[in-house]
Amino acid sequence: MATNTRIVLASRPTGDVTAANFRTESATIPVAKDGEIVVRSRYLSLDPYMRPRMSELRSYVPPFELDKPLTGGSVGEVVDSKNPKFAPGDTVIGMLDWAHYTAHSGAGLRKIDPAAAPLPAHLGILGMPGYTAYHGMIRMGQPKEGETVFVSAATGAVGQLAGQLAKLRGARVVGCAGDDAKCDWAVKELGYDACFNHRRERDYGAVLDALCPKGIDVDFENVGGAIMHAVFARMNNFGRMIFCGAISEYQDATPKPGPEKMFSIVQKRLRIEGFIVSDHIAGMGEFVSEVGGLLKAGKIRHRETVVDGLENAPAAFMGLLKGENFGKLIVKVG
Amino acid sequence: MATNTRIVLASRPTGDVTAANFRTESATIPVAKDGEIVVRSRYLSLDPYMRPRMSELRSYVPPFELDKPLTGGSVGEVVDSKNPKFAPGDTVIGMLDWAHYTAHSGAGLRKIDPAAAPLPAHLGILGMPGYTAYHGMIRMGQPKEGETVFVSAATGAVGQLAGQLAKLRGARVVGCAGDDAKCDWAVKELGYDACFNHRRERDYGAVLDALCPKGIDVDFENVGGAIMHAVFARMNNFGRMIFCGAISEYQDATPKPGPEKMFSIVQKRLRIEGFIVSDHIAGMGEFVSEVGGLLKAGKIRHRETVVDGLENAPAAFMGLLKGENFGKLIVKVG
Repeated sequence: MATNTRIVLASRPTGDVTAANFRTESATIPVAKDGEIVVRSRYLSLDPYMRPRMSELRSYVPPFELDKPLTGGSVGEVVDSKNPKFAPGDTVIGMLDWAHYTAHSGAGLRKIDPAAAPLPAHLGILGMPGYTAYHGMIRMGQPKEGETVFVSAATGAVGQLAGQLAKLRGARVVGCAGDDAKCDWAVKELGYDACFNHRRERDYGAVLDALCPKGIDVDFENVGGAIMHAVFARMNNFGRMIFCGAISEYQDATPKPGPEKMFSIVQKRLRIEGFIVSDHIAGMGEFVSEVGGLLKAGKIRHRETVVDGLENAPAAFMGLLKGENFGKLIVKVG
Repeated sequence: MATNTRIVLASRPTGDVTAANFRTESATIPVAKDGEIVVRSRYLSLDPYMRPRMSELRSYVPPFELDKPLTGGSVGEVVDSKNPKFAPGDTVIGMLDWAHYTAHSGAGLRKIDPAAAPLPAHLGILGMPGYTAYHGMIRMGQPKEGETVFVSAATGAVGQLAGQLAKLRGARVVGCAGDDAKCDWAVKELGYDACFNHRRERDYGAVLDALCPKGIDVDFENVGGAIMHAVFARMNNFGRMIFCGAISEYQDATPKPGPEKMFSIVQKRLRIEGFIVSDHIAGMGEFVSEVGGLLKAGKIRHRETVVDGLENAPAAFMGLLKGENFGKLIVKVG
């Protein structure tokens, strides 16, 4: 008889995530109870925000529970339903277990048209990462023609669209990424004006001075830490720092201090603002319409890394936290 | 023959300002040239922002020039005019020299009605410090009924109104000040719910936990440094930190790092925003109308320290940077 493979949180990491923090379990395939559906996962999105959820932090989403399956944004197919809103065969998107099958109330799941775009795109450029880029860059960063925009993690799931949207608004766009191939792709395919390899550069201030000679007006922050500190020191008057993430800080066993001279927030009238895209779901239609249109018109490029097999999700996630993926990281579950 | 006494910047401070950074000079009383006026200063405002201007910082206002008079917000009387917009006897407000007499083009000076309020009030509660409190608290901080607001430098020229405005909006208002008498006044006269003496408390986190049991929604930041770091760690989701000043950082010879866990800006969706009131002069009418009305209705208290004699301005300014004044600090010039 077929069994349901699922990956549970075996222990909470301190510092780097290790294989010992995960445990693969076999269980019976669930059967829908009244009001429930059972969804077979097709694709699972792996995202940096999952790292803070593995710790017991006071955070915006509750932490993952020990000995329960981790969850993540997924696309799947309804295989059993005792919920009148869903029928077997429906393709749905939403939070599902790191598992082949998830029993679910249906709350927060949304039906999608599988023919509208390749399924992984619903988890990337047209999904939460894409909308994160759109909300943060367009609505919060508001780049203007001629301004300089910096995007850390320039080719990541979010950064790749954030940079292109700023370019379409007429800004000079500079990024950083973790290897030369990513930087090449950012400049040649995404249209970044410049991109530096942050693993090779030692003096972030010097490279930013060279690539952003007029200072920085908008920082789309995904990384935090030393790169962000160097950006902070180079922000122009009335600059906006949009804090989307801080992947370099997620695995800090002891917290690191913020940038020097916080008083410059007054001197330069900076706005530093954090956001979480799930607060803004109501405005997603505008994004799907604008970016969907750009995608169809061939004006937006995107790239995913698809890892085959649920059993490879832990290793892929550990690689993600070290920047080993290229573009949006997705697991093909079954 | 009468002479014009003026105080010039003799040298730039490194670290604490000292008497050696100032030099008192005698000069002849200026005579108005074509288009000019000569103003006799009555009151001079001393404000923390003058400290950064004494250094050669890249800042929002150019630094004071060596061997030239320092300048400051002042009220004075026109004594000579070759400018059709002003007549001898007019009372004006604007930037004048630290001097008995200033020759001036008139640009940026504004006539006021000396009968409308005592002259020092035009430099304090109804002037730039008052408008700074209004713009920062009301327009940027936007405190709501039931929220918790923290004001550092609770009884200073800006803080004393910022706290009262937040109270009038229905917030719980907590502050800190540098001695017990100031804290008493904040609670008994200004209506703060609580105020702690930051020179006596050692553990800012513990005192904030006790006084702000529901966390902090709006921080009106005048001080920076360790107090701000403790506030940052206690901000609630969707909190606003309005950066008006950072007096504790102005005399740092070497810059200090910012608060730990900058990632919490994302987790808590914080907005940290700096401002300089001179960017918002166009909106000052609304402030004068609202706060002038509250003042006439007896709903706003305020307090000034008036120091007698221009020659005492340097010592008073050095005291201001150490928190020795009580309320708005003003020099009665002549």
